[in-house]
Amino acid sequence: MTTPTANFAEMIEEGSALAPQFNEDGLMPAIATDAANGVVLMLAWMNAEALNRTIETGEAWYWSRSRQCLWHKGATSGQVQRVEELRVDCDQDAVWLKVHVGGDGGSCHTGRTSCFYRRIIAVPDQMTFEFGSPPKTMKTMCTASLVVSATPSN
Amino acid sequence: MTTPTANFAEMIEEGSALAPQFNEDGLMPAIATDAANGVVLMLAWMNAEALNRTIETGEAWYWSRSRQCLWHKGATSGQVQRVEELRVDCDQDAVWLKVHVGGDGGSCHTGRTSCFYRRIIAVPDQMTFEFGSPPKTMKTMCTASLVVSATPSN
Repeated sequence: MTTPTANFAEMIEEGSALAPQFNEDGLMPAIATDAANGVVLMLAWMNAEALNRTIETGEAWYWSRSRQCLWHKGATSGQVQRVEELRVDCDQDAVWLKVHVGGDGGSCHTGRTSCFYRRIIAVPDQMTFEFGSPPKTMKTMCTASLVVSATPSN
Repeated sequence: MTTPTANFAEMIEEGSALAPQFNEDGLMPAIATDAANGVVLMLAWMNAEALNRTIETGEAWYWSRSRQCLWHKGATSGQVQRVEELRVDCDQDAVWLKVHVGGDGGSCHTGRTSCFYRRIIAVPDQMTFEFGSPPKTMKTMCTASLVVSATPSN
């Protein structure tokens, strides 16, 4: 016998209705990748309105958790993210945007192309942290020892 | 004058110490992409132990929110994710894993290669939902009208 829970899962995973599953804060993670080369540019958050505006406008809208407001990415910087493709995952609780970035091509508030500009490297009894802007060179800019601090931030 | 908050942000963004910033549940999102072609395979979650084990073993470990346990991806299915590269973002509250998938190459519990097997398409006054396995064909398997349900899931 199919249970209501199984029916719900089937509807979410295989149904033809978009039924985004936001978390308790009304948000879901949104992964933006460069449509040209697959580099992950950023991980941001969308609420229902941000998702709707992204679908309607073809440009990325997010919810800024720090500023607690809707955020049309690039509205002031020119780094608008034009959405080539928008995908939702099996559980409909995350989206993936393939984007073309306007302006200077950056997506990170530090001025870099991608927010993921640091690589973690494990070596015996220590780990190193490698800086580098992935889409441009992948070259090491500096390497340093580090200690993994696994303490939650709150 | 530099404020303590500014110093903390500088340390997180530019320092050489890995200082993962987990959320109030002790988790952070982890994006797994196929190291060969850049396809986003899944969005999962890591706690401190999952992150440490991933770094130490070179294979992806997550925290299963549904089962509330550590999850060595592929331990039973064979779909082990060998980590070619592990990156952390500017705020150190998200990681990106470039992986090679073992077993049958799948990452989604529905049996598909990627969890992001559906594309959202906007057309005038309605939106369509397109099924397709991105890494294999990108072809449409079916298309249907949908209504955006923006109601949070809880």
